[in-house]
Amino acid sequence: MAERIQARYRIETPLPIEQAAASLAGEQSSGTFVNVPGETNELKERFGARLESTHSLEPSAEPALPGARGKKADRYNRAEVVVSWPTENVGTNLPTLVSTLQGNLYELSQFSGLKLLDIDLPASFAGAFRGPKFGIEGTRRLTGVADRPMIGTIIKPSIGLTPEYTANLVDQLAAAGIDFVKDDELMANPPSSPFKVRVEKVMAVVNRHADKTGKRVMVAFNITGEVDEMLANHDLVVKAGGTCVMISLNSVGLSAVKKIADHAAVPIHGHRNGWGMMNRHPWLGIEFPAYQTLWRLAGVDQLHVNGIANKFWEEDDSVVRSMAACRRSTCNLRPILPVVSSGQWGGQAPETYRRTQTTDLLYLAGGGILAHPMGPAAGVLALRQAWEAAVAGVPLDQYARTRPELQKTIEKFGGKSQ
Amino acid sequence: MAERIQARYRIETPLPIEQAAASLAGEQSSGTFVNVPGETNELKERFGARLESTHSLEPSAEPALPGARGKKADRYNRAEVVVSWPTENVGTNLPTLVSTLQGNLYELSQFSGLKLLDIDLPASFAGAFRGPKFGIEGTRRLTGVADRPMIGTIIKPSIGLTPEYTANLVDQLAAAGIDFVKDDELMANPPSSPFKVRVEKVMAVVNRHADKTGKRVMVAFNITGEVDEMLANHDLVVKAGGTCVMISLNSVGLSAVKKIADHAAVPIHGHRNGWGMMNRHPWLGIEFPAYQTLWRLAGVDQLHVNGIANKFWEEDDSVVRSMAACRRSTCNLRPILPVVSSGQWGGQAPETYRRTQTTDLLYLAGGGILAHPMGPAAGVLALRQAWEAAVAGVPLDQYARTRPELQKTIEKFGGKSQ
Repeated sequence: MAERIQARYRIETPLPIEQAAASLAGEQSSGTFVNVPGETNELKERFGARLESTHSLEPSAEPALPGARGKKADRYNRAEVVVSWPTENVGTNLPTLVSTLQGNLYELSQFSGLKLLDIDLPASFAGAFRGPKFGIEGTRRLTGVADRPMIGTIIKPSIGLTPEYTANLVDQLAAAGIDFVKDDELMANPPSSPFKVRVEKVMAVVNRHADKTGKRVMVAFNITGEVDEMLANHDLVVKAGGTCVMISLNSVGLSAVKKIADHAAVPIHGHRNGWGMMNRHPWLGIEFPAYQTLWRLAGVDQLHVNGIANKFWEEDDSVVRSMAACRRSTCNLRPILPVVSSGQWGGQAPETYRRTQTTDLLYLAGGGILAHPMGPAAGVLALRQAWEAAVAGVPLDQYARTRPELQKTIEKFGGKSQ
Repeated sequence: MAERIQARYRIETPLPIEQAAASLAGEQSSGTFVNVPGETNELKERFGARLESTHSLEPSAEPALPGARGKKADRYNRAEVVVSWPTENVGTNLPTLVSTLQGNLYELSQFSGLKLLDIDLPASFAGAFRGPKFGIEGTRRLTGVADRPMIGTIIKPSIGLTPEYTANLVDQLAAAGIDFVKDDELMANPPSSPFKVRVEKVMAVVNRHADKTGKRVMVAFNITGEVDEMLANHDLVVKAGGTCVMISLNSVGLSAVKKIADHAAVPIHGHRNGWGMMNRHPWLGIEFPAYQTLWRLAGVDQLHVNGIANKFWEEDDSVVRSMAACRRSTCNLRPILPVVSSGQWGGQAPETYRRTQTTDLLYLAGGGILAHPMGPAAGVLALRQAWEAAVAGVPLDQYARTRPELQKTIEKFGGKSQ
């Protein structure tokens, strides 16, 4: 019996659920709009996608998306369905897995809503992939942080800083004991900050601090670009003593990211900018648990999950689910380190810990560190203090009484909605 | 004065339009959620994105997408806005262009709808890219079709056919005078049809026909996969005498596709499966004119645009706009050949021609050819006849009176809504 890949979808359709689900399975395996010679029962039996289960949801009076077939229906049926494919349809071809599980499905007029929720892979399929080489444990090892969240920041302003200014900022942050620094996703290799020069200047600072203190700040240099450029820039980082490279995953795409991850000697920091396009509508696109599975197969080590009470649109429940998805077990593949960011300043630490009960995360604060009234060093310290309080279960205000850095952070950022 | 990249968006926001547009420009250039040191006026002046123009649209009483900031508004303002960036923010880094023009924008809670409509590039930016090596003219040259649409089909069933069966089908199609055949996007390199064997078997047939008739059928072999695998499989196709390779663009991603296009000695057939996720909602994602610009920069030669009266959800107006976008002039970059497909059987030829006044297209019929009552050869002939009628302005029924192939096609498919 062939092993099967399972995918769970949330669907909405003017048709009976079983009929719509059959068209999903047909379109993504043997189907065309009429029967053709060669589409034998034996072929359908062996290669056809199969509806495994259906769980009805409350129907809707209005369609979630435009373009559903025929004239307006009285009601739009909703369900969660599980569909499966034999692994032999795909081989171990990762982009073709995506074309099979998503592909033309969003175009089908049989649906007025379709979202891929999660993917369940047989061990034989996942076993063909190495997955993250570093993940949570590898990142902890390289940063030397064992028992608390890794604390990081994003170089801001996003664009326009010279390599010298950036290196100077990293100098201050390293002196303050920060664990992690990243380029902004808008800053890759522009004329005002050539990648090579930036790496040289920044790594000189990082190496100097590492020599002195034994602590090597992990800097995620944004290598986003063409394939050969990314390979070369990865090598440049490693040669300079760097311990991380960053890629804008959606902009670069799955095949090139896998190429870099296969080659990489340091963790891949996966930035998910562009993700909102795939997820913001509740009845269109892909949910994070499925999304992270694809990037885990490609070998991404760290992946953005937004943060509790973020500045973006996403709700906390979704962030909590994403963090759990990164950390869950998937066959032989190492868990991904969740990167918590967006409007984070430390005040979200208690709620983040309460809901996830873990410190296996990278906690990024941009303005929260660099705009701290007492300077970036105090900003870093305040974030550590906030997490100490969170883990100890002590209210932040109380913990801040003897800690002026946290106190100032609360005064500056605590009144804001984020 | 630095040259600027312009992008046009359709936005919806509970905020005043100018305020929302300012947050768009800030987030995608120098902004973070608080002012930080280093974000000088000079830096903002030089690197800041700029709102160029605003065109108000009718507001909506309800938000198009969930997650907009604050409590429910009375009205959601709508507008088309044009925003510009200095090219020096991006350099000539294609994926970073995507991160800049799309990136985190869809996540912003200042918006309840945001869609990238089109991109306008200065010649200095586009000039750094070679773009399509073949496009319309190159594909015409390789297929030997000068003055009518190129007619093609998709090997169906999508999955499960042996290389021998596929080659046998191509044999029939070549004998019928078809111009173009493509693999299905679900069929890349599965165990049941290993890529290498499929290319060998199919190209033996193609070469045999070419030797006999001088006409070489263009077969778009689906090389979708990992970077090295795609490079090797491209080379395999070229070595066997093949004239096209196909890639599932969204599944593979921009950087890997550009790598293959840079290397390619034959046209890249770009399949857009996954596109519905990016475009189906009117207030989320990206419109085709912007989308094709990105793939044109990457070097894709042929790009799917769906078809008039297609089996999918898309409206005809949108298909017509997409065809125009592929064919329009963009700096130094060759136009892309529009690939018309989905439920096409010939009956849509008159309306397609009436609305586009061009035969610069590749017209794909799947079931329309392979399920023709008189066999695939008659299916191909019927499609040519349909296009002859369309260009001549003769009604299909009238043209079919003396042409049984077209007559049978109309009888079989003409009654269907597609």
